[in-house]
Amino acid sequence: MEPPAPPRRVTIVDVARHAQVSTTAVSKVLRNAYGASPEMRTRVRRAIDELGYRPYAAARGLRGQTYTIGVMLPDIRNPFFPEILDGITSRLQGTDYQVFLGPGCNGEKEEARVTEAMIDRGMDGIVLVAPVSSSARLQHVASVVPTVVIGRHGRSPVYDTVTDDDVAGASLIVSHLAGLGHRRIAHIEHHETDPTRIAEMPNAQRADGYRRAMRSLGLTDEIDVVSTSYTQQGGYQGAKELLGRRHRPTAVFAGADIVAMGVLEAVAEAGLSVPGAISVAGYDNTTFAALGPISLTSVDQAGHEIGANAARLLLERITDRHRPSVQVKLSPTLVPRRTTGAAPE
Amino acid sequence: MEPPAPPRRVTIVDVARHAQVSTTAVSKVLRNAYGASPEMRTRVRRAIDELGYRPYAAARGLRGQTYTIGVMLPDIRNPFFPEILDGITSRLQGTDYQVFLGPGCNGEKEEARVTEAMIDRGMDGIVLVAPVSSSARLQHVASVVPTVVIGRHGRSPVYDTVTDDDVAGASLIVSHLAGLGHRRIAHIEHHETDPTRIAEMPNAQRADGYRRAMRSLGLTDEIDVVSTSYTQQGGYQGAKELLGRRHRPTAVFAGADIVAMGVLEAVAEAGLSVPGAISVAGYDNTTFAALGPISLTSVDQAGHEIGANAARLLLERITDRHRPSVQVKLSPTLVPRRTTGAAPE
Repeated sequence: MEPPAPPRRVTIVDVARHAQVSTTAVSKVLRNAYGASPEMRTRVRRAIDELGYRPYAAARGLRGQTYTIGVMLPDIRNPFFPEILDGITSRLQGTDYQVFLGPGCNGEKEEARVTEAMIDRGMDGIVLVAPVSSSARLQHVASVVPTVVIGRHGRSPVYDTVTDDDVAGASLIVSHLAGLGHRRIAHIEHHETDPTRIAEMPNAQRADGYRRAMRSLGLTDEIDVVSTSYTQQGGYQGAKELLGRRHRPTAVFAGADIVAMGVLEAVAEAGLSVPGAISVAGYDNTTFAALGPISLTSVDQAGHEIGANAARLLLERITDRHRPSVQVKLSPTLVPRRTTGAAPE
Repeated sequence: MEPPAPPRRVTIVDVARHAQVSTTAVSKVLRNAYGASPEMRTRVRRAIDELGYRPYAAARGLRGQTYTIGVMLPDIRNPFFPEILDGITSRLQGTDYQVFLGPGCNGEKEEARVTEAMIDRGMDGIVLVAPVSSSARLQHVASVVPTVVIGRHGRSPVYDTVTDDDVAGASLIVSHLAGLGHRRIAHIEHHETDPTRIAEMPNAQRADGYRRAMRSLGLTDEIDVVSTSYTQQGGYQGAKELLGRRHRPTAVFAGADIVAMGVLEAVAEAGLSVPGAISVAGYDNTTFAALGPISLTSVDQAGHEIGANAARLLLERITDRHRPSVQVKLSPTLVPRRTTGAAPE
């Protein structure tokens, strides 16, 4: 016997077809807007009753669903995030779920505002991309609404996580550079002081991965980390500092592609060739890393797969809020391009 | 006499404070989730009544507001759109409105899906950024919910528009190149056949502005337009075609920065120097135009101002749905960088 087709949500379009009126007319009746005749109202109300249509507004009270998933992005400028988003939407294709993005966050207060707004509008589930909030706050959100956290390495009994293996990614870069004959390989990290974030955030994991890889290659004495920020300006400042050293590094591993942009700027200003005098690598394999004039060696995080896994876990959790939490860790790959080459003699 | 303070929306946080419980507890009661004791329910329900809190879910039925604004973006990868978004959110700061983005569109069907979803969830207003849908469809959306359209030059009695003056922007580029001694200035446009879109879309206006500027500078015979698409691949193909001409152009005006990226790639492949042998200019002043290794001459559309104006108009229209429609046109500025220089002898 064939399994029954999954129940499809009745939409405003179905109501309009059933009542033989336009969707505008249905909307007018639902909003009590003027311009809908009494006959129209009666027809639409009857269609609503017959089809059992529940406008989103009735959903929460009846403990139904709004078929809405909120995705909180820290910064829509980071060209890595669209990959994650594509993964999420492709996994949701063919379902009745609609994704809405909550933008404009990059701090705990803003994150609280966006997550409250998502909860307040009855969203069925939330995906938090690289949130900076405390674990306690994340647990709070997850206690109210099904939640998946992307890019944080901590684990929790109430939410699922999907991360890239940042330690492995950093190791790919260091091994690649060492294989090209580099020994003085420096790293520019994002400055972090909060102990939870040091344990959970990707930036801290990348710095840790760098140190571990250097040690395992017998380059412990060459470990050289400059602590600035994951911004272009942070890369510029970090590179200025490294280029000022008496024995300057022959290779720089920037913790993110945007940081590498600042490094390239500082290196060009110093009149040094890339990769002739100095090799530069980033992380995230953003769209601009692939642009011809930049051609930056980077690490690909499989953003699409990260997003698809997050959506899958969220749908599972919406169905069963009390299943044990799941941690998915994906393997990154190295994308060598023109900014890395053989170490100078 | 002082004007009365604008009424502030009662939020879930106010209810929690008033009931002296956590916001989690309020959420649980609102969602009828298990884990809320009967006493808790009573307390929360009383606070809700006393403060007159209306969860979003009750809003539509009562013809109230959801304090939600939907912004439809055609492509979150285009680095110009975050500027618009910043303008929108900065104008809404201090209000109770929350912005949610509807992503993943770039076609009429997807746009219909996203706008229906926004209407279905009772959003108070919608900003459509560079929609590709028909005018009839835009009018339909605007007849149901207050709407502002960004980047389309058509006018409508039911929605407001905010655009850049694309004709003026194209003229800035052509004049800049002519001032550097160029005469053979070619243009790469986005291929367009639909007559409404030819009249309304920014790409068609830029091509028109290019032609007009060439004529007004006495360069009618040098007009040379290649029709591909506003993508990196479109720029690459267009440049290949132009570089194959017997008299190849000394300057290329690409209709968008992303197109210029493809042009730079093709020019580098052909072993030509920029701007020594050929000058290249884009449009949009995206973040990567400013990156050191690229340093692309471009046109800045004042995205922040576009967004701020759109938000202002939308708030006005939410207050008064029947006021006459408004068209705002903003002036772009030229940002000269290293990819344009004196014409070769």
